[in-house]
Amino acid sequence: MEKLTVVKVGGKIVEADDSLQQLLVDFLKIEGAKILVHGGGRLATKLAGQLGVECRMIDGRRITDEDMLRVVTMVYAGLVNKKIVAGLQALEGNAIGLTGADMNIMRSGKRPVTTIDYGFAGDVKEVNTNALALLLQNGYIPVLSPLTHDKKGVLLNTNADTIAAETAKALAQLFDVTLIYCFEKNGVLMDEKDDNSVIPLINRDIYEKYKNSGVIHSGMIPKLDNAFQAVNEGVKQVIITKASKIASERGTVILN
Amino acid sequence: MEKLTVVKVGGKIVEADDSLQQLLVDFLKIEGAKILVHGGGRLATKLAGQLGVECRMIDGRRITDEDMLRVVTMVYAGLVNKKIVAGLQALEGNAIGLTGADMNIMRSGKRPVTTIDYGFAGDVKEVNTNALALLLQNGYIPVLSPLTHDKKGVLLNTNADTIAAETAKALAQLFDVTLIYCFEKNGVLMDEKDDNSVIPLINRDIYEKYKNSGVIHSGMIPKLDNAFQAVNEGVKQVIITKASKIASERGTVILN
Repeated sequence: MEKLTVVKVGGKIVEADDSLQQLLVDFLKIEGAKILVHGGGRLATKLAGQLGVECRMIDGRRITDEDMLRVVTMVYAGLVNKKIVAGLQALEGNAIGLTGADMNIMRSGKRPVTTIDYGFAGDVKEVNTNALALLLQNGYIPVLSPLTHDKKGVLLNTNADTIAAETAKALAQLFDVTLIYCFEKNGVLMDEKDDNSVIPLINRDIYEKYKNSGVIHSGMIPKLDNAFQAVNEGVKQVIITKASKIASERGTVILN
Repeated sequence: MEKLTVVKVGGKIVEADDSLQQLLVDFLKIEGAKILVHGGGRLATKLAGQLGVECRMIDGRRITDEDMLRVVTMVYAGLVNKKIVAGLQALEGNAIGLTGADMNIMRSGKRPVTTIDYGFAGDVKEVNTNALALLLQNGYIPVLSPLTHDKKGVLLNTNADTIAAETAKALAQLFDVTLIYCFEKNGVLMDEKDDNSVIPLINRDIYEKYKNSGVIHSGMIPKLDNAFQAVNEGVKQVIITKASKIASERGTVILN
């Protein structure tokens, strides 16, 4: 099967011109088919502030009311996505920016209200692999913003990590997929104070061992659980690494 | 050749939910391949006001400084484009929203500074017919926002009428193209006070006659000059009509 690399990059890197430019150069060094998934939450928060729209977060997740949906649509699908697309085009990367509504590439359902009402937040239901494959097989580079739709006319705010994982899993039917999460550190660390203490490989046995010994804890656990879910559902490998290392595939490799 | 209809609709219709919904229903009644080009200037002006970005217009054209470029990128490529795409998807129209940077479909050059500096305004240089044809031939409906790029990383604000005309002309090599401009009236009128006095057909002879007699004057002249330029460069027909009549192809037909 042909190789495909799905890279997820957070808001911090794409929001500053210098770090974005370096990211795009590094991203284009990746050989073969590739997809870039981006965030943009800080810029959304900033625009919301300028417009007097209140930002509410619960456990790091945004509550998306109607005004906030307009803000994230403008920032994610407009400002950030098009800046990345234009930047890649300037570097001869034939990028195409997409939300889940475009080509119906990602359909979601509005998250059910339990004790918390997340508002216009979407849980992914279906990825249109044929549409993405058409673009990839014709040499295009999809750039995905963290918005999906319910196929009933409503856009839904969707976590970029989830978009990357769902895209990688769906395309694993057709491609040999590597999923890369850009991280602020060089990888998963043995000692979180030492950026050179990267654990090069984590499989299920190693994961259990490090969880039991407390080396891997708190915020890394949901990240790694998601990574194992991806490799469990057909993704060849997940890599957690610093943005500057995406082309080298160094960092922590998660294998089944 | 296969039929293709390019419809340009202005900001007023797409900005109100009711008129947008009706437009999308009517647009999808058009048989065969189709492209929708939209504006959104009023919403851009509104957002600029909320953000304290000054709007400057000269002869109806916007001066696009860096702050205004951010505003139009958010409104055109984000808010308006994605609302249309999600709305079409809900009606089973497989829409894909694009700026000129996406797939490099429309490259432009920054308008040279003469007595007026329009700022980040783009004059179209090249349309990527292969990319648009790939989408059309696979059943997708491109929804084009009025932004192009210079292929050097910069987005440029570009008149939606121009985007529609350049798209129609470029695709006339591959399709039998009808270009429809949505207008607030039923068509070009014999008597501008009587919306039932539509001139059904204008060719060059009729155009000259009505210009000389003063029936066609002022704002209609650049519109019709553009239409004749399109039919001169391969577009089969240009239709000027009310949004509600786009599927019927009634209104004023401009032929070479």
